[in-house]
Amino acid sequence: MTGHHRRGSGATGHLGLCTDLYELRMVASYLRQGMTAPATFSLFIRPNAARPWYVALGVERVLELLPAFTFGPEELDELQRLGIDREVREALATWQVDTGELWAVPDGTVVLAQEPLLEMTAPLPIAQLLETAVMNLVQYPTLVATKAARCALVADGRMLADFGFRRAHGVETGVEAALAAYLGGGFATSNVEAGRRYGIPTTGTMAHSYIQAFTDEREAFRCFATDHPDYSVLLVDTYDTLRGVARAIEVCQELGIEPKGVRLDSGDMGALAVDARRLLDDAGYVAATIFASGGMDEEEIQRLVTEGAPIDGFGVGTALTVSQDHPGLDIVYKLVEYDDRPVAKFSGVKSTFPGRKQVVRRNGRPTDDVLSLRDATEEGAPLLRPVWRDGQRLVPVDEVEAVRERVRAGLDALPDTWRRPPYVDPAPLPTLGRALEELTEQVRHRVVDDE
Amino acid sequence: MTGHHRRGSGATGHLGLCTDLYELRMVASYLRQGMTAPATFSLFIRPNAARPWYVALGVERVLELLPAFTFGPEELDELQRLGIDREVREALATWQVDTGELWAVPDGTVVLAQEPLLEMTAPLPIAQLLETAVMNLVQYPTLVATKAARCALVADGRMLADFGFRRAHGVETGVEAALAAYLGGGFATSNVEAGRRYGIPTTGTMAHSYIQAFTDEREAFRCFATDHPDYSVLLVDTYDTLRGVARAIEVCQELGIEPKGVRLDSGDMGALAVDARRLLDDAGYVAATIFASGGMDEEEIQRLVTEGAPIDGFGVGTALTVSQDHPGLDIVYKLVEYDDRPVAKFSGVKSTFPGRKQVVRRNGRPTDDVLSLRDATEEGAPLLRPVWRDGQRLVPVDEVEAVRERVRAGLDALPDTWRRPPYVDPAPLPTLGRALEELTEQVRHRVVDDE
Repeated sequence: MTGHHRRGSGATGHLGLCTDLYELRMVASYLRQGMTAPATFSLFIRPNAARPWYVALGVERVLELLPAFTFGPEELDELQRLGIDREVREALATWQVDTGELWAVPDGTVVLAQEPLLEMTAPLPIAQLLETAVMNLVQYPTLVATKAARCALVADGRMLADFGFRRAHGVETGVEAALAAYLGGGFATSNVEAGRRYGIPTTGTMAHSYIQAFTDEREAFRCFATDHPDYSVLLVDTYDTLRGVARAIEVCQELGIEPKGVRLDSGDMGALAVDARRLLDDAGYVAATIFASGGMDEEEIQRLVTEGAPIDGFGVGTALTVSQDHPGLDIVYKLVEYDDRPVAKFSGVKSTFPGRKQVVRRNGRPTDDVLSLRDATEEGAPLLRPVWRDGQRLVPVDEVEAVRERVRAGLDALPDTWRRPPYVDPAPLPTLGRALEELTEQVRHRVVDDE
Repeated sequence: MTGHHRRGSGATGHLGLCTDLYELRMVASYLRQGMTAPATFSLFIRPNAARPWYVALGVERVLELLPAFTFGPEELDELQRLGIDREVREALATWQVDTGELWAVPDGTVVLAQEPLLEMTAPLPIAQLLETAVMNLVQYPTLVATKAARCALVADGRMLADFGFRRAHGVETGVEAALAAYLGGGFATSNVEAGRRYGIPTTGTMAHSYIQAFTDEREAFRCFATDHPDYSVLLVDTYDTLRGVARAIEVCQELGIEPKGVRLDSGDMGALAVDARRLLDDAGYVAATIFASGGMDEEEIQRLVTEGAPIDGFGVGTALTVSQDHPGLDIVYKLVEYDDRPVAKFSGVKSTFPGRKQVVRRNGRPTDDVLSLRDATEEGAPLLRPVWRDGQRLVPVDEVEAVRERVRAGLDALPDTWRRPPYVDPAPLPTLGRALEELTEQVRHRVVDDE
């Protein structure tokens, strides 16, 4: 081993090894056993008290990467090193994810626990091998979009910006977080690359280091407001927040410009915002906004909004990007059918329901959802639709604004008791459709008899 | 805006926009004001009760990416769109991170809060622009290596494997997590790409879906053990754990092979492990191991180890990859000197110390550390050393095993009360060196006088 020099996972152009080893051992065994009949895996989130609902996101990314799940020479060498035998390696050398069907809810759909975000039907080895990557690709965007939606709901119309790039789990992850946060309900991001790549509005003016690089706070404000008159949101808490506000006002009066606003980054935000507002208003700067950041999370935002703090916008960093109160979803990808035989697992919270599914939304409300079999006839709007078949995508790429609108509509359809904390406990689950209930009972009997 | 088709952050080959917008606004202002004197920024972690110590990691990655902080045509277009004026854009068009000096602790060093992991001295605009990326690049590896070290300490010599790829915040992040976890004290990973790229031992055999794809658990065990006799760790909890163990034994006896072990993934692990051990021993399979996974985290591992459960290894997934109990470090990158003027901030927990620093390790023990000025003469071993100067790296790339050994030595030097929870509270901080204390007082007086 010669050091740990890094290359990106796309370095070889083949993502076949972006998986857990057990998937490959299983695939090898399936191939040797001739077990290549169609299997359906269902990706859903297990009930968890931390989240009553989720903003599904990531299917677009899955569609984009499916063709890259191949094995090049370096990947095949690694398989040999791992003891995967020649016959299996030869099969994987020409492997393409080009047979099967993917059903999915549209990105931005508000879903409940137990509801499939996607279902993959493909020859067992293919559907199995994709498990790790598909979960990874859907988990993080869904996690952040959901967190952003929660923050946006408690911010109640106030500006919400993603400030989390520096604490995201990876550089690329920070860019994806900015997109997911925007899709989930954010207004802007500090992340410049995300702005370039996805056209997300970017925001940001100055850090404490800027103020400190000058010997004097007034001089710092003066230079910044002169250099960036259109972006004059001045950070006022480097030394003393209210003195900072007063100085910002003095400098703007001196320069004859109207400040865009001030940013508070520490202290008792509620009280400071009231005083800052008064100072700005007294100076005639009624249009200047007050922006709050620094360790913000849902609870603090809700508290400030509820107590009527005159804050116009919030910058949320770590809490948003890592979904701090719930940094990993209980997302799973479970076999529900193999070779026309529905399968399930019956073990308390880890139970699964058998068969290919559909989610039927009644009355446009997630809390009225029915979890049914794919071909059942419950009335309402089906959420899952085929998005990919035999190597061809069947749906156009969603526009960013279309996804945002879908999120808004989904959140609007939530009952008030689920829109903001404290949420009613426990998390709502979809009603089970009659045919699914019957099939579940049949499979339960079969499994119990087998035992 | 036409959809949200993704490209990797390396797509343009320029990382200049992998930053927060405020960095660019500040840089623009510095350039216009001619503020290009050397600035030193210090990257450290603020005290937090969740972590008494940290395994520093990521400097290698920073060194690797410094040359990529440039602006190509697409980046410059974006700057124009953001209202950055022509003069500044022309300066950035030829921008190179080729002036300055980076001091850092070696990857794998055990450090305390307040101790710089790195200090960058460079012309103010350069040092400022790198803030976001440097924090991002150091935060996540440090987070995971620290979490892995904690898990390894409570596992107390038992095998520890990273199973977190599927819940990592990104595909590439999952690969980096596997490396950080291995460097921090893990033994293996499920992540195949991490095995290929970094030579980390990989592990994994079968999931529940494998068992369920067969109509019968015995048949599944039989096929797997036949196809992979060298990797016959059988997952026994799909239907009933102890019946699963009994069946695994029967199948192995039938086939005349010795099972490598069993994996328990649900239920009362302590009790199930005792019973599984007895069944395996009674069958003469005393070398077969028992491996536990499923929602594992430090606390559960410690409980099982303390109660003497006969478990030989643990698979830790989400808890490790997202550092579940503490998914974001309070890492900061603070200006400590500009143009030979030491600067600091005096505001409670957000206070900083002025000047370029050194950390002096006395008696080889982190808990005896002194935080001193760079040129102070405290006795002991200095941790920070220059690693990069004016575009040239000054140190060789560390071997993976060298980093692992450094981590082990650092953890061995921790007093027992800090090696495992419950940790003594509050977190230890370094002693302040005399010269640093004096400088801090001087700066405090100057700042207070200025106010």
